[in-house]
Amino acid sequence: MKISLGAETLAAPTPAWLVGSYDAAGAPNIMTIAWGGICCSKPPCLAVSLRAATHTHGAIMARRAFTVSIPSVAQAAATDYAGMVSGKNTDKFAALGLTAVKSELVDAPYVGECPLIVECAVLHVFELGLHTQFVGEIKDVKADAAILDEKGHVDPQKARFFTYIPGARRYVALGADIGQGFSIGKAAVAG
Amino acid sequence: MKISLGAETLAAPTPAWLVGSYDAAGAPNIMTIAWGGICCSKPPCLAVSLRAATHTHGAIMARRAFTVSIPSVAQAAATDYAGMVSGKNTDKFAALGLTAVKSELVDAPYVGECPLIVECAVLHVFELGLHTQFVGEIKDVKADAAILDEKGHVDPQKARFFTYIPGARRYVALGADIGQGFSIGKAAVAG
Repeated sequence: MKISLGAETLAAPTPAWLVGSYDAAGAPNIMTIAWGGICCSKPPCLAVSLRAATHTHGAIMARRAFTVSIPSVAQAAATDYAGMVSGKNTDKFAALGLTAVKSELVDAPYVGECPLIVECAVLHVFELGLHTQFVGEIKDVKADAAILDEKGHVDPQKARFFTYIPGARRYVALGADIGQGFSIGKAAVAG
Repeated sequence: MKISLGAETLAAPTPAWLVGSYDAAGAPNIMTIAWGGICCSKPPCLAVSLRAATHTHGAIMARRAFTVSIPSVAQAAATDYAGMVSGKNTDKFAALGLTAVKSELVDAPYVGECPLIVECAVLHVFELGLHTQFVGEIKDVKADAAILDEKGHVDPQKARFFTYIPGARRYVALGADIGQGFSIGKAAVAG
């Protein structure tokens, strides 16, 4: 028996990502977004959706670039804070004691303390309604050496990522490994 | 010290969602996607990206509708399987012993066994490259009563959702609760 929750923006998992940009004054800023995800493999693209009222929206429109800093649980409180105040009147990097690192590939800063960074140049801007979707071409992904496995892949158990659950508004850490993609499905069907 | 991983589709968390559709013959089908997310609050919209070569791509183009069935760890192997074979030549619902439930709101089926369902009518179709992004307006969200908390919100600890990590290609269960959104950030800055 399913219960209707209405036409609401409910899904899981949704990301809690820090979108980095430089504003008109050249100040580095971050804002937290949960509306986003990878959206194309070739060219490699990632989308983030922002309201036009945000300080970051104008910054991305002007510089056609953004970064996504993917935090670990160590940055969960900072991530929540970056979604509560505006870069219009707060230097969030300073308030949070985080390091703004200038990307060498796109005109935007990222959070040095975050373990995984995606650097994006804006490819499309889609006006969807309350939110504008920025589709960014991924120019590089950078990871802390400490979160890589022996094959050079990001190891989620080392990275300690987390997710945001809308509705209940809970942050939840990633937990136990379930298994390998394109593999565990073989056992799902009778042979 | 950050290590460059190249211009790759790497991010975390990414979803492992089952996209439901009816094909030209009226057969219900599901496919697994990791490229997607909520993309607008008003109208409420969710985006999924599919390659044109997939059976589901043609089905969504024709019926302008899809569902997203969000699985729990109990459906992890089935979710992996639904990403390994094509609906062109396999009845995945039958092979997996899953129940195709006809949506009353959009022209697409969903997976009865999944705890959270999002029903979408196509609002935009964006050709991004290898992938087409379908932006669907959310017409309703349905949840199993068993995953709701006392306030009627989806409780991730009850729902036992999981995520997919590209690169390493691991499925990872959601784990420990970290805290409340728009709350834990207050402790991130000096008073």
